[in-house]
Amino acid sequence: MKEQVRPLIDRLAGLQTGLFQKDFLLTWNQTDQDLLAVLLATEILEAFYRANIDARTFRGSLAVSLFRDKSTRTRFSFASAASLLGLSLMDLDETKSQVAHGETVRETANMISFLTEVIGIRDDMFIGEGHEYMLEVSQSVDAGFAEGVLPQRPAVINLQCDRDHPTQSMADLMHLIKTFGSVEALRGKKIAMTWAHSPSYGKPLSVPQGIIGLMTRFGMHVSLAHPEGYDLMPDIVAKAGDFAKAAGGTFEVTHSMEDAFANADIVYPKSWAPFHVMQERTRLLRQGKAAELHELEKRCLEDNYQQRDWECTEEMMAKTKNGQALYMHCLPADITGVSCEAGEVAASVFDRYRWPTYREAEHKPYVMAAMILLTRFQEPARVLADLLEKDAPRRWR
Amino acid sequence: MKEQVRPLIDRLAGLQTGLFQKDFLLTWNQTDQDLLAVLLATEILEAFYRANIDARTFRGSLAVSLFRDKSTRTRFSFASAASLLGLSLMDLDETKSQVAHGETVRETANMISFLTEVIGIRDDMFIGEGHEYMLEVSQSVDAGFAEGVLPQRPAVINLQCDRDHPTQSMADLMHLIKTFGSVEALRGKKIAMTWAHSPSYGKPLSVPQGIIGLMTRFGMHVSLAHPEGYDLMPDIVAKAGDFAKAAGGTFEVTHSMEDAFANADIVYPKSWAPFHVMQERTRLLRQGKAAELHELEKRCLEDNYQQRDWECTEEMMAKTKNGQALYMHCLPADITGVSCEAGEVAASVFDRYRWPTYREAEHKPYVMAAMILLTRFQEPARVLADLLEKDAPRRWR
Amino acid sequence: MKEQVRPLIDRLAGLQTGLFQKDFLLTWNQTDQDLLAVLLATEILEAFYRANIDARTFRGSLAVSLFRDKSTRTRFSFASAASLLGLSLMDLDETKSQVAHGETVRETANMISFLTEVIGIRDDMFIGEGHEYMLEVSQSVDAGFAEGVLPQRPAVINLQCDRDHPTQSMADLMHLIKTFGSVEALRGKKIAMTWAHSPSYGKPLSVPQGIIGLMTRFGMHVSLAHPEGYDLMPDIVAKAGDFAKAAGGTFEVTHSMEDAFANADIVYPKSWAPFHVMQERTRLLRQGKAAELHELEKRCLEDNYQQRDWECTEEMMAKTKNGQALYMHCLPADITGVSCEAGEVAASVFDRYRWPTYREAEHKPYVMAAMILLTRFQEPARVLADLLEKDAPRRWR
Repeated sequence: MKEQVRPLIDRLAGLQTGLFQKDFLLTWNQTDQDLLAVLLATEILEAFYRANIDARTFRGSLAVSLFRDKSTRTRFSFASAASLLGLSLMDLDETKSQVAHGETVRETANMISFLTEVIGIRDDMFIGEGHEYMLEVSQSVDAGFAEGVLPQRPAVINLQCDRDHPTQSMADLMHLIKTFGSVEALRGKKIAMTWAHSPSYGKPLSVPQGIIGLMTRFGMHVSLAHPEGYDLMPDIVAKAGDFAKAAGGTFEVTHSMEDAFANADIVYPKSWAPFHVMQERTRLLRQGKAAELHELEKRCLEDNYQQRDWECTEEMMAKTKNGQALYMHCLPADITGVSCEAGEVAASVFDRYRWPTYREAEHKPYVMAAMILLTRFQEPARVLADLLEKDAPRRWR
Repeated sequence: MKEQVRPLIDRLAGLQTGLFQKDFLLTWNQTDQDLLAVLLATEILEAFYRANIDARTFRGSLAVSLFRDKSTRTRFSFASAASLLGLSLMDLDETKSQVAHGETVRETANMISFLTEVIGIRDDMFIGEGHEYMLEVSQSVDAGFAEGVLPQRPAVINLQCDRDHPTQSMADLMHLIKTFGSVEALRGKKIAMTWAHSPSYGKPLSVPQGIIGLMTRFGMHVSLAHPEGYDLMPDIVAKAGDFAKAAGGTFEVTHSMEDAFANADIVYPKSWAPFHVMQERTRLLRQGKAAELHELEKRCLEDNYQQRDWECTEEMMAKTKNGQALYMHCLPADITGVSCEAGEVAASVFDRYRWPTYREAEHKPYVMAAMILLTRFQEPARVLADLLEKDAPRRWR
Repeated sequence: MKEQVRPLIDRLAGLQTGLFQKDFLLTWNQTDQDLLAVLLATEILEAFYRANIDARTFRGSLAVSLFRDKSTRTRFSFASAASLLGLSLMDLDETKSQVAHGETVRETANMISFLTEVIGIRDDMFIGEGHEYMLEVSQSVDAGFAEGVLPQRPAVINLQCDRDHPTQSMADLMHLIKTFGSVEALRGKKIAMTWAHSPSYGKPLSVPQGIIGLMTRFGMHVSLAHPEGYDLMPDIVAKAGDFAKAAGGTFEVTHSMEDAFANADIVYPKSWAPFHVMQERTRLLRQGKAAELHELEKRCLEDNYQQRDWECTEEMMAKTKNGQALYMHCLPADITGVSCEAGEVAASVFDRYRWPTYREAEHKPYVMAAMILLTRFQEPARVLADLLEKDAPRRWR
């Protein structure tokens, strides 16, 4: 194992990243070297875990999580990442705290950070809020660290905001690398990020935005498909186009699922709510207009129902490269006849790809741990080399 | 201390158990050697704790708990077991997760298990569900491990289901061994597992079932007593009879508390709801029939009240062997005049046995830790021998 | 660093404290040497943290918290203290446990303590209850330890009760020591503990009581100011007078904020509810009289509003020593124009002292950790000396 991991550590050591003492909020604000560093550290930590090497780099400090939306997999991924690195997890549960009682974000951010190395936040409910909130927390701990109130500057990790879902998209990318062999092997591959029907409304935009904002950076042909009106946030769509151009790939937006699936190497069919609906919903929620919200939901579900042929069926899969594209999903998927009457994906398709989607998810704890390592250590490659050298057992041998 | 513990480790090393890579769900599905191994590992871990020996065998992995019913002692016991072995506890709180949003058990079981060594589940509310759910989780992580999605196969530990409560019954057994000196000393002893009156309804069957399913395996005379109509699940009662026969003890069912207490060495008076009521309750709960549920509860409480002479009074205790039987309870007990007007046990009886019942409970964290060790390590005796040899301080010396 | 810390450890070694195997509930029941020991251990642990020295003294045991009121900062402080010392935190959440179902305090206290080193409790809602409850828990674990049911005697730490808030007041004292240079430098300084207006009612008395009960012991001039009728508990006010006399300082009660601020070195303007209102509120809450409670709240808020000139304005600050008194607050403060229309402090004053108040709060996790060390180790100075000697890295170097 050591022979396979050492070259990865050496490559990591050779990278110039700007992550130390910073956050990980949006992939499109990070350099290619930053992203490559996360991928390498992820792979190294996965190898450590499977080789039973203790990866704890902290003793007696906290990892803080704040979930403003229900969550199972992200919550457990973050807990796993914290535990892997030796951090004690502490959840900032807004129902148990005084957050709602007029405390300012600045104050709370500092009060929870005296012994804290990382703050993971999920805040994806309201358009125009999640990312802003994370920035506010980031600036607050920056100030606290500058003032000497905080002995360390905790990193803020975006566990899903209204704009991006970087721990998901990086895990997805890791899955592609493992499936196709390398980052380089992704060049020229076609990925279809398509809307899909779901009998629910209000699903965040962060996954499709995260995918088009990230996959366009590696020379892939990214096809974004959705029914008319189901737009993503325009500035992120624009970024995807720019990235594709710069990386020598392509980016297209189509309103045909068939076109997107045609000859695709990878398909990612997933429901989301249109940007304008999310904006309207946020406006109504803020104003507490329950009746209008109910009306909006009803209208959206009807609209969705009109588009119920946007389903990843066997017929659709047959259109992909040799009929064998890799099916991806961030889970849980709305499976037709299983979790709902008519959903995102046919049961037979999902059945065939169940374990690959689980493998896709498996990268997430390590991606988070990699982000923590890279933001919290000036020389992460040396730390990893030390851990490898020490070779302490993760579980009793 | 080392001199007293080494022989226990040697005995453990000599046992053939089938627990590695498996679960601990029902005592009656485990071999005698499995049970003996749990008892030995429990005793060794208790000795380690009191001798200030660090017993952490994991670093950076998770123990996951899922409680589908309120719990204090079991929750803390499991947390203690996890901490003792170095695992970080993560509670799968269904109110905070998407479990209720159509996720399948298989998916959730795998998503929470990427870095997980053990999943402890309490699910005792619905007849015919708790054990089935645990089996489903077990099969899910089996499949995930076989597919290579999970780097390890987490053990599922039953923290109380509709059928059995093995961490309780094994702690109870440990208490008997400590009280009477050895497993062998239990042979020929009479234990009365009797129903007792309580002003509440819907108490699980798992404790009395666990007791008759376990104590019949050690040559004891087990007397199960309850008013007519307060039956346990018939297949488990049948098992108890078979076990008693095989072990050279006896098993009887009686409808007289006096008969059961007569000359008993041990008494375990405890309320439960009749099997047929639990079935009816489960049916109504599934159908959401609130009015009928209320009616059922009312009827049951009235029935219970008719049986309020089923109380462990001083008069009843006087009928036991020399009037000095060991009183047992899983706690909390319904104490007449203390926690209710008329309950399971007279205050003066409970007062006399308070500390023994606390001691009974004290074994629980170690029983759980023993189950984790035995299911997660191929050579648990060697691991324990190593820990003893290393003799690292649990708390600073 | 070692050169600066060793003398502190030596001083700690020279103290005679009665804290081992005891609790920390009320500062006024502790000797001067106890308090000095907490201050020294706090300072040492802070130095360790900043010098990256691993301070974990426990492995595999629990710290239990019980919050009967919402909390962010205290909750995180206690979690941080637990993590710093290597304890796994377990929260006794009364909504998830059977505490409300008739379990006695004695039983629960023991059931959660089999592997527990410390129990931190916040119970400040009802006058005459919080401290009593802590005493009950304390007596329960005393009995369990004496009976041999508990292998160790967990310390009970008061995280705020109806009478005192010792982790707050000790952190406040630490802040004063850091600001003025030493405990000795506090002699002769004037501190104004004054009521201040807030548009909320029912704020506990424990902070002002904690301040006057503690600061009077160090030769300071303590001025307690509040509008007529806003009394604290009389026995604690009496204690403050006695302490001041014994320590060679002064203690006065005034109904003029101006008088208190005049020439003060330190001001601590903070809202609280009058003692008689808290008593009335407790009575009504116990009787479940919702209408009367609403009436009481309304009346109190009106009373408060009459006193809205009790605000820490720039004009008030100008009256202090050179107009430059240290402003203190336990946070969160009610800031006029920020968190409310008319509050405890003017925004410009708070802005100037924001970072000092954060620094004040930073001591809290270490104060709690110090209390744990001193109550749980017979020779805390030797343990700290060992940790310094060992110099294990808290985070990877």
